[in-house]
Amino acid sequence: MSEHLTLSIDAMGGDNAPEMVVAGINLSRRQLPDVDYILFGNEQMIAPLLDKYPHVKDCCRIVHTSDIVSDDEKPSVALRQGRQSSMRLAINAVGDGEANGVISAGNTGALMAMAKFVLKTLPGISRPAIATYFPTQRGESLMLDLGANVLCDADNLVQFAVMGEVFARNVLGLEQPSVGLLNVGTEDLKGHESIQQAAEILKNTSLPIKFHGFVEGDDIGAGTVDVVVTDGFTGNIALKATEGTAKLVGKFLKDALTSTPVSKLGAVLARKALNEFRMKMDPRRYNGAMFLGLNGICIKSHGGTDEIGFSNAIGVAVELITDGLNDGIKEDFAQLNSNGKKEQAAAV
Amino acid sequence: MSEHLTLSIDAMGGDNAPEMVVAGINLSRRQLPDVDYILFGNEQMIAPLLDKYPHVKDCCRIVHTSDIVSDDEKPSVALRQGRQSSMRLAINAVGDGEANGVISAGNTGALMAMAKFVLKTLPGISRPAIATYFPTQRGESLMLDLGANVLCDADNLVQFAVMGEVFARNVLGLEQPSVGLLNVGTEDLKGHESIQQAAEILKNTSLPIKFHGFVEGDDIGAGTVDVVVTDGFTGNIALKATEGTAKLVGKFLKDALTSTPVSKLGAVLARKALNEFRMKMDPRRYNGAMFLGLNGICIKSHGGTDEIGFSNAIGVAVELITDGLNDGIKEDFAQLNSNGKKEQAAAV
Repeated sequence: MSEHLTLSIDAMGGDNAPEMVVAGINLSRRQLPDVDYILFGNEQMIAPLLDKYPHVKDCCRIVHTSDIVSDDEKPSVALRQGRQSSMRLAINAVGDGEANGVISAGNTGALMAMAKFVLKTLPGISRPAIATYFPTQRGESLMLDLGANVLCDADNLVQFAVMGEVFARNVLGLEQPSVGLLNVGTEDLKGHESIQQAAEILKNTSLPIKFHGFVEGDDIGAGTVDVVVTDGFTGNIALKATEGTAKLVGKFLKDALTSTPVSKLGAVLARKALNEFRMKMDPRRYNGAMFLGLNGICIKSHGGTDEIGFSNAIGVAVELITDGLNDGIKEDFAQLNSNGKKEQAAAV
Repeated sequence: MSEHLTLSIDAMGGDNAPEMVVAGINLSRRQLPDVDYILFGNEQMIAPLLDKYPHVKDCCRIVHTSDIVSDDEKPSVALRQGRQSSMRLAINAVGDGEANGVISAGNTGALMAMAKFVLKTLPGISRPAIATYFPTQRGESLMLDLGANVLCDADNLVQFAVMGEVFARNVLGLEQPSVGLLNVGTEDLKGHESIQQAAEILKNTSLPIKFHGFVEGDDIGAGTVDVVVTDGFTGNIALKATEGTAKLVGKFLKDALTSTPVSKLGAVLARKALNEFRMKMDPRRYNGAMFLGLNGICIKSHGGTDEIGFSNAIGVAVELITDGLNDGIKEDFAQLNSNGKKEQAAAV
């Protein structure tokens, strides 16, 4: 990466902000030396942290604001009343062209509402979606929406499918990513009306989408498709259910391996392998959810993450920006969408 | 257990039926010697299996039918055209009082439609739900609905909550089981209208329900509540997502432990512990989903299970019957429901 980038950071978002944020930037310095940061937030709290991490001080500029968006603030209220909040000012920096992307570990709903208001959606996208990578038996897949849209109609799901497909092609570098709609069964008659209509549109479209059809919950971990499309209610619960299961399994494993002296010895011998296993399962590796469909890069870090997770979110933002991906997606999308509109009009 | 029981079995349901069914009964013989079985299905296929398992022959009676419900049959079609199917005749045996409960590993939708038609719902229940136990960090919890009802309104969710609570009290033996509604966040404003209304009703009810409020996807594995209530679409996907994750984690673990000679040696030493871990994770242990809200015991075995899983489903059926639980639930329900109706009327 030779290009010089600037990220705007909501330094006050997240359970352990701003320390976790500054420590996360510190961790990213070696791998990403050419990134500058604008930190929005309380200068009195942030400045001492920059003294603590001198490598970060060089690449950071603080923009003071004492206003923050709380975690339980309603998105509509945050949008009206949070115009001077660290979150909003950080998003504005992308809208104004001062920064190439924004990261926040704060209130997801407020971040989405503000980002949509400031950055606007890409042509043809009525609602942005939250997407993330996740590990599967076949590598990594992308899932969306993860909670931006609790209720989705067929058109929303089709737009998510198109966005996810373009994204997987551009960002994951897959030649022809497969796309599946998450459902309670794979037969045509399964599920509710929106999902059946969406499947019908995707099946009959002339868009270059490899539509696999319906997939089930266990197909997520199996990696049956490259892009899993669902509404924000189901996607949020499915993703968190997998996180909860991974934690549960980790606990069961730990209990088993510490149950007897012999098993403990075995665990010591297999320590390196078990550490690799733990690393593979570490949710911090997958921190950094992407808001797709916006006219700008916006990354949501998990609120409860630590500096390792935040550093990963920085990596995700930089990845999306440096390859010029958003431009690529914009182009593809404008084109896909004009085709798509004709298609949808013909299909309905 | 001193009582003598009869189970009616759809011997043709499931991927490996009827062999898996008969082998499953064989496995159950030692633990449950006082159970008789009526096997509904193709006599020419079943009879040779009874010769193969002589202990099963003693306790089984075959009722021949050549008609079966296929896995992709629409429930409405199965209901109309499958009157002589092994599934329908097995359910009829419960309706006629010939058997104390029915088990099928066949088409879930058809089983639910037929069971609802033949057995009817308990007073005050408009729609039955599918429930199962699942392992958590705190022990075992119950989740419903797992796919019987793709779309649910607030009243459905409230009925599921009441059924789940009564069930957890009676079957799991919990004094005051806690009940949570699965949502995308724990704040009051999260989710869609049905779930918010259901929460409002449960919060203000004078029914003896310990309503925890909203829980998230990761609360399933954490065991935050004893009963997780959700619509059939979300519940089905969440449950299968956890199954997929458990498989994925198992693969990662196996890969790690076989990666080097030292890790292999460690795995050999920890073999006993790892086997216990695998047993704890074994989905067959949790095979046997219960149809709650029906005027009769009906258990759905996973279609892809083997004899160990089917034997577990038999255990679940016997457990529900022998404690006279359905009678208890019926009584509690009639009472709860008459209160509930007043409550709901007052709340709306």
